Amino acid sequence: MGNALITDLYELKMASSYLQRGMVGPATFSLFVRRLPTNRGFLVAAGLEDCLRYLESFAFSTEDLDWLENAGFPVDVIERFSALRFTGDVHAVPEGRVVLANEPLLEVTAPIAEAQLVETYLLNQVTFQTALATKATRCRLAAGDIELVDFALRRTHGTEAGMAVARVSAIAGFVGSSNVEAARRFGLQAAGTMAHSYIEAFPTEAEAFRAFAEDVPGPITFLVDTYDTLEGVKTAAAVIRDLGLTGSVGVRLDSGNLAQLARETRRLLDDVDLSEVRIFVSGGLDEYDLERFRVNHVPIDAAGVGTRLGVSTDAPSLDSAYKLVAFEERPVLKLSVAKATLPGAKQVWRRLPFDEDVLATRNEPGPTGFEPLLVPVMRGGCRVEPPDTIEAARLRLTRDLDGLPPAARVLRAPTVPGVAVSERLRLLTDYVTAGVRNVNDG
Amino acid sequence: MGNALITDLYELKMASSYLQRGMVGPATFSLFVRRLPTNRGFLVAAGLEDCLRYLESFAFSTEDLDWLENAGFPVDVIERFSALRFTGDVHAVPEGRVVLANEPLLEVTAPIAEAQLVETYLLNQVTFQTALATKATRCRLAAGDIELVDFALRRTHGTEAGMAVARVSAIAGFVGSSNVEAARRFGLQAAGTMAHSYIEAFPTEAEAFRAFAEDVPGPITFLVDTYDTLEGVKTAAAVIRDLGLTGSVGVRLDSGNLAQLARETRRLLDDVDLSEVRIFVSGGLDEYDLERFRVNHVPIDAAGVGTRLGVSTDAPSLDSAYKLVAFEERPVLKLSVAKATLPGAKQVWRRLPFDEDVLATRNEPGPTGFEPLLVPVMRGGCRVEPPDTIEAARLRLTRDLDGLPPAARVLRAPTVPGVAVSERLRLLTDYVTAGVRNVNDG
Repeated sequence: MGNALITDLYELKMASSYLQRGMVGPATFSLFVRRLPTNRGFLVAAGLEDCLRYLESFAFSTEDLDWLENAGFPVDVIERFSALRFTGDVHAVPEGRVVLANEPLLEVTAPIAEAQLVETYLLNQVTFQTALATKATRCRLAAGDIELVDFALRRTHGTEAGMAVARVSAIAGFVGSSNVEAARRFGLQAAGTMAHSYIEAFPTEAEAFRAFAEDVPGPITFLVDTYDTLEGVKTAAAVIRDLGLTGSVGVRLDSGNLAQLARETRRLLDDVDLSEVRIFVSGGLDEYDLERFRVNHVPIDAAGVGTRLGVSTDAPSLDSAYKLVAFEERPVLKLSVAKATLPGAKQVWRRLPFDEDVLATRNEPGPTGFEPLLVPVMRGGCRVEPPDTIEAARLRLTRDLDGLPPAARVLRAPTVPGVAVSERLRLLTDYVTAGVRNVNDG
Repeated sequence: MGNALITDLYELKMASSYLQRGMVGPATFSLFVRRLPTNRGFLVAAGLEDCLRYLESFAFSTEDLDWLENAGFPVDVIERFSALRFTGDVHAVPEGRVVLANEPLLEVTAPIAEAQLVETYLLNQVTFQTALATKATRCRLAAGDIELVDFALRRTHGTEAGMAVARVSAIAGFVGSSNVEAARRFGLQAAGTMAHSYIEAFPTEAEAFRAFAEDVPGPITFLVDTYDTLEGVKTAAAVIRDLGLTGSVGVRLDSGNLAQLARETRRLLDDVDLSEVRIFVSGGLDEYDLERFRVNHVPIDAAGVGTRLGVSTDAPSLDSAYKLVAFEERPVLKLSVAKATLPGAKQVWRRLPFDEDVLATRNEPGPTGFEPLLVPVMRGGCRVEPPDTIEAARLRLTRDLDGLPPAARVLRAPTVPGVAVSERLRLLTDYVTAGVRNVNDG
């Protein structure tokens, strides 16, 4: 099965032209985010694993080639497309690391047609997964001791996005996901309670609670707000005591003033010696709600975060770019207003706890005590390492977050850590800029 | 291949309980949007085609069943899951029709376990595709005579979302998409120009333009803002005249003050007798930009709309719900604060031009001169009609938009058309509410 048509038409047009002209020299493209969205003090790199899987399997199918021939692409180009695989090198920031504006998340070096054809998919995956990983991390930072579960699948932009949200929220430290396919695919803890419809399908709430407790494997959480929330809590408490339920048992609040209801629920449960019964909340939550719960010491044990995580409501996309920075060993750049780029392959150097990161040319030595963010992940079209694990990404994220200044971690009006440009990169930029000006003035 | 695990865990828990108890009576669930997002005067129904395809193929694979058994689901339930297919009836609003808050977009009637299991996927698809179709329609309404092309693939939440955006923007009246796979799959016009990288890969802009014109099939659009936009326009004009290019030829502006640059570009082109050369703009555009272009008579022929369309930036999700409204012939409802529902299967009646829509019980006669919005689309798990076409959906949308009051079509602070509740639905609601109160008070 081909995946090469999952791209923008212009990539195919440009690749066609390059191949017709024998332009097969190596090009380096750099994928980075130009600006952080409002209220973001950092981003969390994600999407790389899907990019590598795509690059490994990049190919045109016979049907793809037939379609292109009908669309007017020359026969000799069709033949070259037929044999084309991704044979390039990729340097990238591993998933889970904190990244900032203008720091490359990924750099591709490959014959220019190959490097161009993969632009659309790489931008797509890195952009949306990084946006969502960042949102999930904000929720996790805000929630303090409250456990978080991904409830987003019903509101993500398709099921592919749903799988990505489950995975990146696990990287961010969520304890589980309602998404069963994602739980299976990524080895996550599947989590879920019951819907209002279940309660309504029984003559009374108490009968529904009893039936659920008797029938369903795993932890039991009673949804108590179908009719009257506090009455629902009492009903759940009675069922828990009657059936002698132990282990992981909880009640879920899904509407109303959650903070107030959680306090009253805690009191009701404690009054009947059910202090071990957990309180789970859900319903349109985001990092701001979670922070309020934490700051106000609302007695909540766990929260399901859905829609606002799943589409990253306040910043559903990032201003990402995939820019040519070198072609045939020659560094290049673009001078367009507000979209100027820095030339050449790059490295980002970091010291923890965060000092200023340093954006540098790829091969210059880094400052003493700094570590490089970009690592080789693909050589000649093959992975350098076996697929990354969620656990490894989570550890990287924890380490970077621990090193971030508190002012970069706050939810509102954060202070973004600085990114310095190395002397050598600055000189290169000046040099290339002068050259570009000359060529086009001449 | 199974698709049944693309769901929330709680659906499986509830279905398991229903099956264990022999609860196989028919349930009706209603999928609707509770509130319109800010600045939305209407929504455009979308996602139905993918829902029907999913329901037709709903099944657990052997691997799915193994996973569920390991997760603790009882063996007799696993056996029932193994044989389970979707055998229900579906009524739905056809894609492209205008819908309002509380109007069901889709109603499922099926044995309760089946109807419950499909909740997550149906909500996912209808919610995000309706949000995106609405955004695309707003762009189309705002743009006037400017042709629109979908440029969103690189910024959508995954490639599945990219395909949906291409399709729903075609329903909204876009003339093409940059997304090649979508163009092939849905029979759309693929469209694309060139990237800045292409220009940079040649020694000069003029050489890049010449190469592109010589090599590339289809319409030619020169990207002119890599170095200096107006110089780029002059270079493109010289190449067009030198090569004697005719047919569909254009220049594309992708940065800077697009309105001002478009005016200057038009003048430059007209001055050298290239008045047929088209001006194409792109770069972070949304419906508000397009409206400004139209209102100010900016000489723009076509625009590529990307990120802000692809994630519906200002309203990336909808407050949708999938609620049990009847079980075993008994209408049910939920009384939770701010999330109360109306009981029973429903119909929506509309008269064009828009009067108030009427939300009614499914089987009561509609008001004279009104047409029903919901139509049977699936009976016993099989489609009633062959798959819908984009063209049919576009015609439905055009007709509904023509019938909408101008105040509902404006981009900001629209007046949403009213939705009346039929006398019979009101009486039913009162009756069921009273019954629920009694049951839970008693």
